[in-house]
Amino acid sequence: MTGPATPVRDTMRASVLVRPRELEIQERPVPVPGPGEVLVRVGSVGICGSDTHFYMDGRLGRFVVEEPIVLGHECGGTIVGVGEGVAAERVGERVAIEPQRLDFTGELAREGYYNLDPSVEFFAAPPIDGAFQEYVTVPHFFAHPVPDSLDDDAAALIEPLSVALHAVRKARVTGGSRVLVAGAGPIGIMLTQVSRAFGATEVIVSDIDASRRERALTLGATDVVDATGDVASLGLGVDVFIDASGATPAVVSGINNVRPEGHVVLVGLGATEMPLPVVDIMNSEITLTGVYRYRNTWPAAIALAADGRITVDRFVTARFGLDQVAEAFEASTRPDSLKVVVRPGE
Amino acid sequence: MTGPATPVRDTMRASVLVRPRELEIQERPVPVPGPGEVLVRVGSVGICGSDTHFYMDGRLGRFVVEEPIVLGHECGGTIVGVGEGVAAERVGERVAIEPQRLDFTGELAREGYYNLDPSVEFFAAPPIDGAFQEYVTVPHFFAHPVPDSLDDDAAALIEPLSVALHAVRKARVTGGSRVLVAGAGPIGIMLTQVSRAFGATEVIVSDIDASRRERALTLGATDVVDATGDVASLGLGVDVFIDASGATPAVVSGINNVRPEGHVVLVGLGATEMPLPVVDIMNSEITLTGVYRYRNTWPAAIALAADGRITVDRFVTARFGLDQVAEAFEASTRPDSLKVVVRPGE
Amino acid sequence: MTGPATPVRDTMRASVLVRPRELEIQERPVPVPGPGEVLVRVGSVGICGSDTHFYMDGRLGRFVVEEPIVLGHECGGTIVGVGEGVAAERVGERVAIEPQRLDFTGELAREGYYNLDPSVEFFAAPPIDGAFQEYVTVPHFFAHPVPDSLDDDAAALIEPLSVALHAVRKARVTGGSRVLVAGAGPIGIMLTQVSRAFGATEVIVSDIDASRRERALTLGATDVVDATGDVASLGLGVDVFIDASGATPAVVSGINNVRPEGHVVLVGLGATEMPLPVVDIMNSEITLTGVYRYRNTWPAAIALAADGRITVDRFVTARFGLDQVAEAFEASTRPDSLKVVVRPGE
Amino acid sequence: MTGPATPVRDTMRASVLVRPRELEIQERPVPVPGPGEVLVRVGSVGICGSDTHFYMDGRLGRFVVEEPIVLGHECGGTIVGVGEGVAAERVGERVAIEPQRLDFTGELAREGYYNLDPSVEFFAAPPIDGAFQEYVTVPHFFAHPVPDSLDDDAAALIEPLSVALHAVRKARVTGGSRVLVAGAGPIGIMLTQVSRAFGATEVIVSDIDASRRERALTLGATDVVDATGDVASLGLGVDVFIDASGATPAVVSGINNVRPEGHVVLVGLGATEMPLPVVDIMNSEITLTGVYRYRNTWPAAIALAADGRITVDRFVTARFGLDQVAEAFEASTRPDSLKVVVRPGE
Repeated sequence: MTGPATPVRDTMRASVLVRPRELEIQERPVPVPGPGEVLVRVGSVGICGSDTHFYMDGRLGRFVVEEPIVLGHECGGTIVGVGEGVAAERVGERVAIEPQRLDFTGELAREGYYNLDPSVEFFAAPPIDGAFQEYVTVPHFFAHPVPDSLDDDAAALIEPLSVALHAVRKARVTGGSRVLVAGAGPIGIMLTQVSRAFGATEVIVSDIDASRRERALTLGATDVVDATGDVASLGLGVDVFIDASGATPAVVSGINNVRPEGHVVLVGLGATEMPLPVVDIMNSEITLTGVYRYRNTWPAAIALAADGRITVDRFVTARFGLDQVAEAFEASTRPDSLKVVVRPGE
Repeated sequence: MTGPATPVRDTMRASVLVRPRELEIQERPVPVPGPGEVLVRVGSVGICGSDTHFYMDGRLGRFVVEEPIVLGHECGGTIVGVGEGVAAERVGERVAIEPQRLDFTGELAREGYYNLDPSVEFFAAPPIDGAFQEYVTVPHFFAHPVPDSLDDDAAALIEPLSVALHAVRKARVTGGSRVLVAGAGPIGIMLTQVSRAFGATEVIVSDIDASRRERALTLGATDVVDATGDVASLGLGVDVFIDASGATPAVVSGINNVRPEGHVVLVGLGATEMPLPVVDIMNSEITLTGVYRYRNTWPAAIALAADGRITVDRFVTARFGLDQVAEAFEASTRPDSLKVVVRPGE
Repeated sequence: MTGPATPVRDTMRASVLVRPRELEIQERPVPVPGPGEVLVRVGSVGICGSDTHFYMDGRLGRFVVEEPIVLGHECGGTIVGVGEGVAAERVGERVAIEPQRLDFTGELAREGYYNLDPSVEFFAAPPIDGAFQEYVTVPHFFAHPVPDSLDDDAAALIEPLSVALHAVRKARVTGGSRVLVAGAGPIGIMLTQVSRAFGATEVIVSDIDASRRERALTLGATDVVDATGDVASLGLGVDVFIDASGATPAVVSGINNVRPEGHVVLVGLGATEMPLPVVDIMNSEITLTGVYRYRNTWPAAIALAADGRITVDRFVTARFGLDQVAEAFEASTRPDSLKVVVRPGE
Repeated sequence: MTGPATPVRDTMRASVLVRPRELEIQERPVPVPGPGEVLVRVGSVGICGSDTHFYMDGRLGRFVVEEPIVLGHECGGTIVGVGEGVAAERVGERVAIEPQRLDFTGELAREGYYNLDPSVEFFAAPPIDGAFQEYVTVPHFFAHPVPDSLDDDAAALIEPLSVALHAVRKARVTGGSRVLVAGAGPIGIMLTQVSRAFGATEVIVSDIDASRRERALTLGATDVVDATGDVASLGLGVDVFIDASGATPAVVSGINNVRPEGHVVLVGLGATEMPLPVVDIMNSEITLTGVYRYRNTWPAAIALAADGRITVDRFVTARFGLDQVAEAFEASTRPDSLKVVVRPGE
């Protein structure tokens, strides 16, 4: 490791999930960046629904917490050290972290689908540690520079923004698109703003909660729909439906509102199987797909946020220190919460 | 109407379905081609599963037989008259018929999705009459010329071949693709041959019937799978899965055999809703869609058949006259039947 | 024709080009809308470069003015009558006109490429009359409704906006794209704004004229480049280059600034042949194409303009009456002109 | 290195180009496979036009031979050793070599465009040595297994086949496509056969030489055109034109034979700049691109060759030993030569 601008200590504080709902601060060695890696002092880490699942239940889908783990994978910070082969000039650079490592020589990665490559080791996906700690290492090309107009919270939010960006790309949202988004949580709002940034002239957001619908209208939605009503019969005929709710009725009624040759993208995790209206899909030749994280999204996401098209600063509803991660999880589940961040250095 | 090369009589015989399972021969006026239309003497008409549904049950999906109807929509023949604005030289031309009329100025048609335009009037979709009669009229551009190497039976089979072609295009089958087809009936075999024609180097066909699997191997399948077994666990990792069975278990297990970023296309009609493995679709970013008939397929389908890549001549397992349509329906339901045709002129 | 809300006179005034640079006002019969057509009272007509070519030189490309012709094809107005088969309720509707007629049953139209269909009869493309007159007829589906937030000038400008929209779609501009546009005239500025509307975070405009570059910066460009300098060596590495200049050096240097796998779209008409750097195109696998008018653009263009993403109201730099078409042409060639409109009713 | 099945000697023979047209056999150390690499005993190496350029002129495009170099990059053989991290079971495997090394973590590689990544080190592109020697090393995933139905010559020919496959993919050849190929040399014939394998029902080959045209007809062309005639006026209206000639007149006349919305792909290297008919490209909205080597082609190319769709065995017109590389170059320039191979072990 060469050239740290800031003296890096030998040990650091990490918030470790030792068992469901039980966190403890541990003093751990500061990680050492390997060849091609950078060491990042973590400025801000957003809490994602998957973190909450691991915190509450110790599992999510095929991932199970079997030993103590550091959660958190939405992460912005500053490079404070570099490994072999990385330019020392990068020390001091403010970055948004794409939180994973992988072998890019696998078949899927070579085809450009690196997010689907089985070699991926993802932050906070057991047993890989995440970012609720003072320092992390990451491959140099996954530490994406951010302009100073984006603070560390904004840099952290590039991660959920990337989820939305990947989904909006898959949905083929473009200038003049009419879009329906189910779910007015952070990802639903990100999808709304990204859809608008891609040229959608109408983005209708459905949610079961009136105050969340209200908030969606202030954050980019052109219209809202009460998801407790008869959405299936609205006949919106949108070009694109993106589900961020994971709720089976929302997915089914959403599909019913898509025009012929339209696109459906599933983002929200819900039931493993859903009864889908296949004859409607066939008769209208609707294309349905889903997303798994993201690929090649950071530069565009950063540019869109820096351009002011995504109001990343308006997503953070609460901030906590590393000692308060439990409170942060608590806060993140409140109905009026949009995005809660943990700031390890404070 | 100008210039018929063959004297056309005033009346003709038509096989009319007066109620489910009851057909009668009626003497009807020979239709007169309107402006831009041609009059075709029907040489051969294939029996499709949808015809059988109407014959047996009087309905299929949203279409219900409410008054007497002429079935049959897979149709080849010879132009014997032309309407206003159509070159008289076309009389005598042998053609494969794209069996529909529509207003091409609608929004979906203008976008190139004419098969999805609500204005479509389709042969043998109630209340529109089909082709189990001696003559039909059709827009001139939907009477597609066929070379003499394709006889009238082959010309009729361009219609089901078009269904397969449209599906294979949507499935993005290309050189080197590995494909799984569920269902070894006529459409499944057409899908197999079209996939091979598009460059698939492997086409695995699943079916519950051993003799149909055996036949598939002689008609283009590179391998077969017993659909009564545990298909879901085979782990084929194909690029493309096309369902021609309409069977929910086949669809679900088919999806489980698709590689990341692969494509699924639904062709076979089955349950209105199916419980689909959405998390698998998301985790592998699989794209699923379905087809509704076809668009812009005839010229390519005719060229592929003429090129010998689709062995259309090997699909016809029985031929019947217009008086024998009931027997033809009967024959078409036999397990060893592949494609039964009615030849109105014989 | 049924139900005109406004009394329509029998004759109207038309500005007719009788020979190059010689216009005269003629009193002509008000056209009668045919079946499926509407009669539109023309509110505003923009002057396009092609009109100017016909006015000045009597020709453009393969089109030659051989008899007197009414120019003008960028046209907004109000429906005042309808032909057979069109709902009388449309009378009174304010519309933007897609200025053409065609037979949608041709092969290219059926495939969705209606702009390339040889049957197109286009306003003001000799020998078809255009819109520098008080009334025009057009197929009902090509009279696209506009909201009242867009005035007639704005409605007229949907036509050049459509050119830009079609080009930006072909160029695959999307969220985060970096775009280079050559030429800061009206189409270049439209391309800039449409690119921004599609999510481009950087749109660099090149032009040889400093004041035009200055204006581009106030109308959406994020940066400008002096086209008289060494553009080829800038190494911009943009995702997309769109040429609106028609200048060979601009096209060549633009291509040199495109990143591998990037897209080039030619919009500006210039030399019939251009010496293009084919080895660079090959080595970087750049995709180059061009556009011919537009297809399926009006609804999206209207939505984008109504959404405020395209500042159509800021394009009009001068307005003239039907008696002043010569002055209008004169004005349109001034360097500080962006878009000049003729208002036949004033 | 672990587990060679065959005793590998310490030194090997290599045919080294010491200056243009001067080759000498040198005894060199057998290369040692690095981590993730395999050692391959070279069975057959095809001679490519680029090798000939380096042999004759010492340069090709931006690549210049400045020090002695081993040419040859079309290579098949057998794995005889493996580096760290590669399964020893691979020893003995017969393989076709994708002749390059690169850093897959670069931006272009991560996007799936690894062939365009600046980090590529390509066999026989100065200063990187190629395969006219007894042994080479290559990353394990670039040593693609071939079935025994393909001999070493066939394995070597997977490389030029990959060039054709990449081009045919870019050209969007599919079932029913009509294709024009300019140039009846080995790449032109490969393009012809691959186009047929992808479903093209018509592949017209143009060439200036009658005997080459004749041969093309025996190797997959459905028709031929004399390139010395007036090709531009043929009005073929093909869907796809692929140039394998590098001749400017062929490229220009080829473009003139493409239908609206058709595709043009440049494969043959010729002039740096070509005068292209840009107005025709615009009026017909033709898409033009070019190819630089290939990406992700080997598995599909091997499957197509093994499937018998590409008659790789019919391409080899002469075989030479390592001592006869000069004679091999000589032979490869004869008009009746299609593909000449060097077999280092014989």
